[in-house]
Order: sequence, then C-alpha cells, then structure tokens
Amino acid sequence: MTILLHELAERLGATVEGDGDVEISGCAPIDTAGPTEITFLANRKYAQFLRSTRAAGVLIDSSTPCPDHVTRLVCDDPYFAFRNALVELCGFRTHPAPIDPDAARIHPAATVADDAVVHPYVVVEEGASVGRRTVLYPGVYIGTGTVVGDDCILYPNVTVYDRCVLGDRVTLHSSTVIGHDGFGYATHGGRHEKIPQTGNVVIEDDVELGAGCAIERAAIEETRIGKGTKFADLISIGHGTRVGDHCLLVSLVGISGSVDVGNYVAIGGQAGVTGHLKIGDGVQVMARAAVARDVEPGRRVGGVPAIDSEDAKRNALAGTDLYGLFKRVRQLEREVRRLREEGDDG
Amino acid sequence: MTILLHELAERLGATVEGDGDVEISGCAPIDTAGPTEITFLANRKYAQFLRSTRAAGVLIDSSTPCPDHVTRLVCDDPYFAFRNALVELCGFRTHPAPIDPDAARIHPAATVADDAVVHPYVVVEEGASVGRRTVLYPGVYIGTGTVVGDDCILYPNVTVYDRCVLGDRVTLHSSTVIGHDGFGYATHGGRHEKIPQTGNVVIEDDVELGAGCAIERAAIEETRIGKGTKFADLISIGHGTRVGDHCLLVSLVGISGSVDVGNYVAIGGQAGVTGHLKIGDGVQVMARAAVARDVEPGRRVGGVPAIDSEDAKRNALAGTDLYGLFKRVRQLEREVRRLREEGDDG
Amino acid sequence: MTILLHELAERLGATVEGDGDVEISGCAPIDTAGPTEITFLANRKYAQFLRSTRAAGVLIDSSTPCPDHVTRLVCDDPYFAFRNALVELCGFRTHPAPIDPDAARIHPAATVADDAVVHPYVVVEEGASVGRRTVLYPGVYIGTGTVVGDDCILYPNVTVYDRCVLGDRVTLHSSTVIGHDGFGYATHGGRHEKIPQTGNVVIEDDVELGAGCAIERAAIEETRIGKGTKFADLISIGHGTRVGDHCLLVSLVGISGSVDVGNYVAIGGQAGVTGHLKIGDGVQVMARAAVARDVEPGRRVGGVPAIDSEDAKRNALAGTDLYGLFKRVRQLEREVRRLREEGDDG
Repeated sequence: MTILLHELAERLGATVEGDGDVEISGCAPIDTAGPTEITFLANRKYAQFLRSTRAAGVLIDSSTPCPDHVTRLVCDDPYFAFRNALVELCGFRTHPAPIDPDAARIHPAATVADDAVVHPYVVVEEGASVGRRTVLYPGVYIGTGTVVGDDCILYPNVTVYDRCVLGDRVTLHSSTVIGHDGFGYATHGGRHEKIPQTGNVVIEDDVELGAGCAIERAAIEETRIGKGTKFADLISIGHGTRVGDHCLLVSLVGISGSVDVGNYVAIGGQAGVTGHLKIGDGVQVMARAAVARDVEPGRRVGGVPAIDSEDAKRNALAGTDLYGLFKRVRQLEREVRRLREEGDDG
Repeated sequence: MTILLHELAERLGATVEGDGDVEISGCAPIDTAGPTEITFLANRKYAQFLRSTRAAGVLIDSSTPCPDHVTRLVCDDPYFAFRNALVELCGFRTHPAPIDPDAARIHPAATVADDAVVHPYVVVEEGASVGRRTVLYPGVYIGTGTVVGDDCILYPNVTVYDRCVLGDRVTLHSSTVIGHDGFGYATHGGRHEKIPQTGNVVIEDDVELGAGCAIERAAIEETRIGKGTKFADLISIGHGTRVGDHCLLVSLVGISGSVDVGNYVAIGGQAGVTGHLKIGDGVQVMARAAVARDVEPGRRVGGVPAIDSEDAKRNALAGTDLYGLFKRVRQLEREVRRLREEGDDG
Repeated sequence: MTILLHELAERLGATVEGDGDVEISGCAPIDTAGPTEITFLANRKYAQFLRSTRAAGVLIDSSTPCPDHVTRLVCDDPYFAFRNALVELCGFRTHPAPIDPDAARIHPAATVADDAVVHPYVVVEEGASVGRRTVLYPGVYIGTGTVVGDDCILYPNVTVYDRCVLGDRVTLHSSTVIGHDGFGYATHGGRHEKIPQTGNVVIEDDVELGAGCAIERAAIEETRIGKGTKFADLISIGHGTRVGDHCLLVSLVGISGSVDVGNYVAIGGQAGVTGHLKIGDGVQVMARAAVARDVEPGRRVGGVPAIDSEDAKRNALAGTDLYGLFKRVRQLEREVRRLREEGDDG
C-alpha cells in the first residue's frame, strides 16, 4: 500500500515540517531509505546520516537538531512512531492456511476452537484445549491437559508439555520448549535420583518468546512468565522460577531455579542469575552480568559478580589495564624498599 | 492418593516426632505447604519458615533446630526423602498412548520392539532399532542404523542422527539434537573445507539431557556421555569429547571438542571448557568459569581463566572494588614521590 | 574401502618416507590408530605420541621432528591432508531415501525440483521453492515464499520462516531456526509494542550452521550470513546483523542486532557482540570475549570488555592473583604511612 506522507503523519500523531504530499510506500534505515520511504532517528549514533538521507521524511523528536532540507515528522517518541508506521505500511505476518487440514492428530477428548488454525503434523493430546484464532504451525506438540488461550501463535516445532497453561496472545517461536522437566535430582548413594517434576509452566497473556528457549516446569507448583514479557532466543529458565510482567530478556540469558524476578526487569545478553534469588521490580541487569545475590528494586547492576552498574563499569575500565597496575605496584614496592633502606642508612 | 503421615514416614525411612495420624495428599515448599502436605528443609535459607509453616510435617535432619510445635520427619537426607515422598505421592509422568499408531514412518528394515510406543510423525530410518517400552513422542527422528535401548523417553522433536547409540533408560527432552556433524573444517586456500564427521555419539544408560542440547558426533571414533550423567538445557558438547559417569551439567554450558571429563564432575551454568583438556574425576567447576587448562581430580575451580575456587572467590570479591584499588595505587604513587622528593631535599 | 598407503599419499599430495605398501582402511587419532590406519600431527600437544603410535603412517609437515621408525607422509598442511584422507576413505554422509515420498505436504503453488529429496512430515508453503538435489529431512518447515537453493541439506526439525533466501550448498543442522521475528519492541505506555519484522534472512552459498542456532529476521531489510561461513551450535544472531564471508563462529556465541561482521572473522565460544557495532575483516575474537566497541580489521581481541588479545591475556593472568595484589597494596600503604611518620619524627 501507499499513503501520502501527511496522512501517515496524522495517523502517527506526528507534525510534518516539510513536504507532506509525497507518496510513501515503506520504511527503511536512515542511511538506505529512498525517496518514497520514511525513516526515524532514535539512536544518536545515526544522526550523522541526517544530512545525507534520501528519505521522504524522518520521525524525530523536537529537541534533536535536523538540517532544514530534511522533512521532519516531529513526535514525542520517534521509535514508537516508526513502529506504528511499520504497522500501517507493512502490518504483521499473515499466517498461511493449512495445506491439508486433516493432516494433524487431535485427540477426541481435546478441545480445539472451530476457528483455530491447525497445520499438518500437529499433535494435540487428550484433555488439551486450544483457543480461538490460535495458530499451531506444523510440528507443534500440545501435551495432555495443556491449555492454550486465544490468538496464540505457536511456530513450527514448538513443544508444550503436559498440564501447562498459555494465556491469550502468546507467541512462541520455533524450537522453543515449554514445560519439560526441571533439572532436579537428589544425589544418593552415588546416583542422581530424578525428582518427579509435578508442577507446570504458566505463560501469561501477551508473552512472546524467541526461538530455542527452554522453560522448565516446576518440581512442585509452577514456573511462571508474567504478562507482556518478551524473550529473545536461546534463553533458559530454571524450574520454579517466576519472571514478572513486562520484562525483557536478551538472548542466551540463563536464570536458575526458584528465582523471583519482578516486573519491568531487563536482563542483557548472556547474563546469568543464581538460584533462589529475588530480583526487584524495574531492575536492569547488564549484558554478561552474573547476579549472585538479591537485587533491590530499581537497581542497575553489572559485572561478575553483579554490583552497581556504575561501579561495575569503572571496574571493567580499570580492569583493561590490570597488568599495568601490577607493574605499578611492583615499581612502588621497589621504591618503598629503597626509601626504607635510605632511611635505615640515614 | 492420600496416605497417613506415619505410613509415609515409614516408607521414607523417617522417624515421626509429632502427630503421625494426619492424612497427607501432597508435597509443597515450606512457605506455601498446607495442612495435608509435607515439606522439607535442606537449604538453611528456608529455616526462617519453620516457625510459620502450615505443613503437616517437615522432613529434616536430626541436627537442625526446629520449633516443638512442628511435626518433624527426622531422616538422614531430607532432600532425598522429599524426592521419595514425591515419587510415592505423585509418581513420574504417565506417557499418553499414541493418538494414531499408524501415523509414523518406520523403515521396513528397522527394528522396533512390540511394546515400544511410537507416536505420530515419528520417523525411524533403515537399520535403526528401538528397544522395549521406549517412548518416541511426535516429531522424533531416529537416523539410519541408530540404536535406542529399552525404557528410553524421547520427547517431541528430538533428533538423533545416524549410527548413534543410546543405552537403556535414556531421556532426551524436546529439541535436543544428538549426533549432528562436529564443527570440523580444515581451512585451505581461503575456504573452510568440511571434514567428514565419521564418528558417532554414544549415550550410556540412565542419562537425561534437558531441552535444546546439542551433542556433536566425533570426526573419528566417538563422542560419549557416561552413564547416569544429567544435563540441564541448551548445552553444547563438541566433537570427540567424553563426559564421564554421573556428571551434572547446568544450563548453557559449552564444552569444546576432544575434552576428557571424568566421573562425578559438576559444571555450573554458562561455564565453558577449552578443547583437548582433561578434567579429573570429582572436579567441580563453578558457574561461568572458563576452564583453559587441565584440572586435577577432586579440584574445585572457578573464574576466568579457572583457578582454585577459593582463590577465584577472593579475586572476584577484590575485583568488585578494582577501581578503588587503582585510586589507592595512584595515591601511593603520589605519596612515594613526595617522600622521595623530601629525601632528596634532606 | 582399502587403499595402499603410497596410493593414498599420492592422492593427498604427500611424500612417503617409510613403507608405502601397507593396506590402509581408515583414519584414527595418533594415540589409538592401528596398523591399517593413518593419522596426522597438527597440534604439537600430541607429538608425545609419535614414538608409540601404531599407525601405518603419520601425515606430518617437513619441519616437525619424527622418530625414524615411523612412516611419515610429508605434506605442507597435515590437517588438510588428513581431511582429504577422510574424504577418500570414508566420504560424507549418504542421505537415506524417504521412507514414504507421499507423507509430506507441498503447497500446489510451491516449486520443488524433481530431484529434490523430500522426507515425510515436511511442509513447503505457498510460493516457496526448493532447488535441485536438496534434501529436506523429516519435520523441516519451509515458509511462504522462501527460496532454498540447490544441493542444500536441511536436517530434521529445521524451521525456515517465510520469505527467506538460502543459497546453494547450505547445510542446516537440526532444531536450527532461520528467520523468526527479531527481538524488536517499542516500549510505550508501559507495554512492549511489537515492531513488525518485515525483513528477512539471506543465507549465502556454502554456509553450514550447527544445531539449535537462531538467526533472527530483520525488522527492515535483511539479516545476512555470508558465503562459506560456518557456525557451531546454539548461536544467536540478532536482527539486521550481517555476518561476512568465510567466518567461523564457535558454540554459544551471541551477536546482537545491526552488527556488521566482516569477512574471515573468527569468534570463540560464548563470546558476545553488542548491537550496532562494526567488526572488521579478519578479526579474531577470543572465547568468552565481550565486544563492546568497533574492532579494526585484522585485530585480535579478548576480555570483558574486549581489548587487544595480548593485553587481555596479560590482564587475565594478572587477575588470577588479584587478591594478592590487594594485599600488596595494603602492605605498601602501611609502609608508606610508617615512612611518612618517620619523616615527620625526623
């Protein structure tokens, strides 16, 4: 579809400063956008491209300097406006109709909504239920007694074990696994004896998990991912852990079991959290941090072990010349010895 | 099922101190257990809940102080007893019968035991064999010539490549991959030329691997996971590596190729091991450690690079004030300069 | 197959020094090779086994000392020659014929080459195309409009989302996911609003990705993996990132979004790269490094944050006695105080 720039701006709540009568067909990065595309500036790193961009318009906030020849779409939150422009111009993925609606296996005692979309090679076990408009792509497995809400999207080869609960509008990307057994063994007589994992996993509304994530079921009670929370890829959540609402977890994060993560927590890539800890609301964990003790709400932490992130940054910077520090200490030791000897001589 | 507390205690080898005539229906954490549930105390962190727990009984060792009003189930190993209570009261997962026993594809020249349970959309290739009572969930793939023992459980979407060997009672969770090609290339003339991965993977008896693990086949000979070893999730094992018996590996561990890991080795989350190393029996590797040289049996190591864990802990603690140390050294340098100047003046 | 040693040497471009009339049946590591097998020496760590090896011949370069009783196959690049010997003697995996060629679902408006090999339970959506001799193992999913080139191998349970492009001779190991949505949200009014991921993923010729990798599609434009690049397992690539040609990435690497990685870049295990960075051609990133700023071509970097690798190694070594350094600084502070007091007294 195409739309006039001023019409698009209106839908986005942006004010046009420049030519609003250009036809817009798409969105693109600032350095590659063409004359029928709009772009945005949210990361100052890309401000250098403002002068040379060929974009028909740039979503920008009112405080950012911008050359006069560039058409500006002034708005409060350029990144969110760009997101909305993408929704207007491109929309979200349309899901294909199943090639063969009969090439799935639904247990007679499962409940699948009439308007659910079930692709070939899906299996829905006994007592499971699948909500309205939910899409199950090929190779999806829904275990015994598991409940999948409305408007969910489970991409190919997702596995949800038995007795789990998915809310509405849950999106799970391919190869992600929900509700497999927690890593629980009691070591006795030289053997690791398996502890029955009798709990389940609850994924609340509006959660989206990336590809290849692994969310363990609880030994007892539940593992829970709170509403609106989003995961990137290859994330491991231990058994009995609760992740709060509206959290953001970046790829390759590992959270051990029985952790209590608050709401609006952000955890950077490859970070890890030890078991049985409490991470308060609004905490930000920097990439690669290793959280080994409870974190108070609102704190920003980094480093190994994780401490206040400003301290962690200063330590990390200092650490880039650690060898130099050793040499300086060695030199100090020599000088102090000499001073002491001179003192003795005197 | 329900059972009287004293009967349950008898089965667990525990001595009741308190009221043993309560009916027990389940197990729960100490802080949430109700009056028909038992709980346990193994981690001192939770001792604070002893006073307020509503549990009908607490599995506890004889040396841990406990308020008199709490019914105690005294035993040597409360965690193992709790595991056994869960087995008594809840048992392990019951596997569903296949919805459609004919919706799988077994090669005519494969051998599948009569009492194996083969779900829809399973493929078993030529020359493969599947043992007695083994369960293959939907989407499982068993490659050419691969041998799967008795009483194994392969959860949905597990892939086992050709010519691998799984012992008895092996459990593989969803999306786990066994026997794909090792990461082996010979770089020549600017290209990475693939080295045929002619070996295989052998998984011994009683191994359980979590979700999304990747165990590479060997270039020559074998990659081997020893009997009774348990992996959590998203673990990568390089080609030709041997992991010993009764090891425990936590999520997101990466072990490079040609490593020799002994028996009863425990490796914490997100730890890594460089290729061609030897890790002795009973070694404990702390979470996030980077093992870059051989480790003697019985050692406990941590840090990057990994050293003795007590030293690593002290270093890590010191590292949390590394910037402070830089400032102290700078201050020392100033003072020593002043002392030297004063000496020169004198 | 078997072959005389001197014939094999000829094919490998190696010169026999010793008995060339032995029949060779295979390849093996230097410490376990038997009298009908050849081996190689490329890693000096294994030179200790030269004296005791039972191999019929050792591929070795002319500069490495070798006992006279050992038959040498002298060549410039023993590792590459060994690779070629494995190709001669064992070859690459032969792919099985589909057990049932009709147990897949190909959309009528998809194009699958006549000589493509499509296994049971594969789904190929509308508008997709699959090239000549390409093998799609069971459980593979090819999304709407996706193009798969010639001579590709997609192992079981691989998912390729819609509108992606795979070149020729691309190999994807099991559970790997291509083209799922990038981790892109605009946070507004307390909610993480999903940004349509309208771009795709392009995988160029001769790429091989290990098991359980996750390559996100771009929000706009494309994520690209350059020709000849090889990944190990469980690797996460963020949206809009471009990885150059002939790169090598080891297991558990995470690269954030919008990163530009040059050609012939090698990245060690568990390393990470922050978003929006530029990594120059020929860069080597050590295992576990955290790259947080642009890296110039040809540099070798390590550490957290990543700096020059020689500096990083020295820092890491120094860091193994960081606590000792603290004690030395404390001792210096005491001595300097004493010296100052003595000066004051004098």
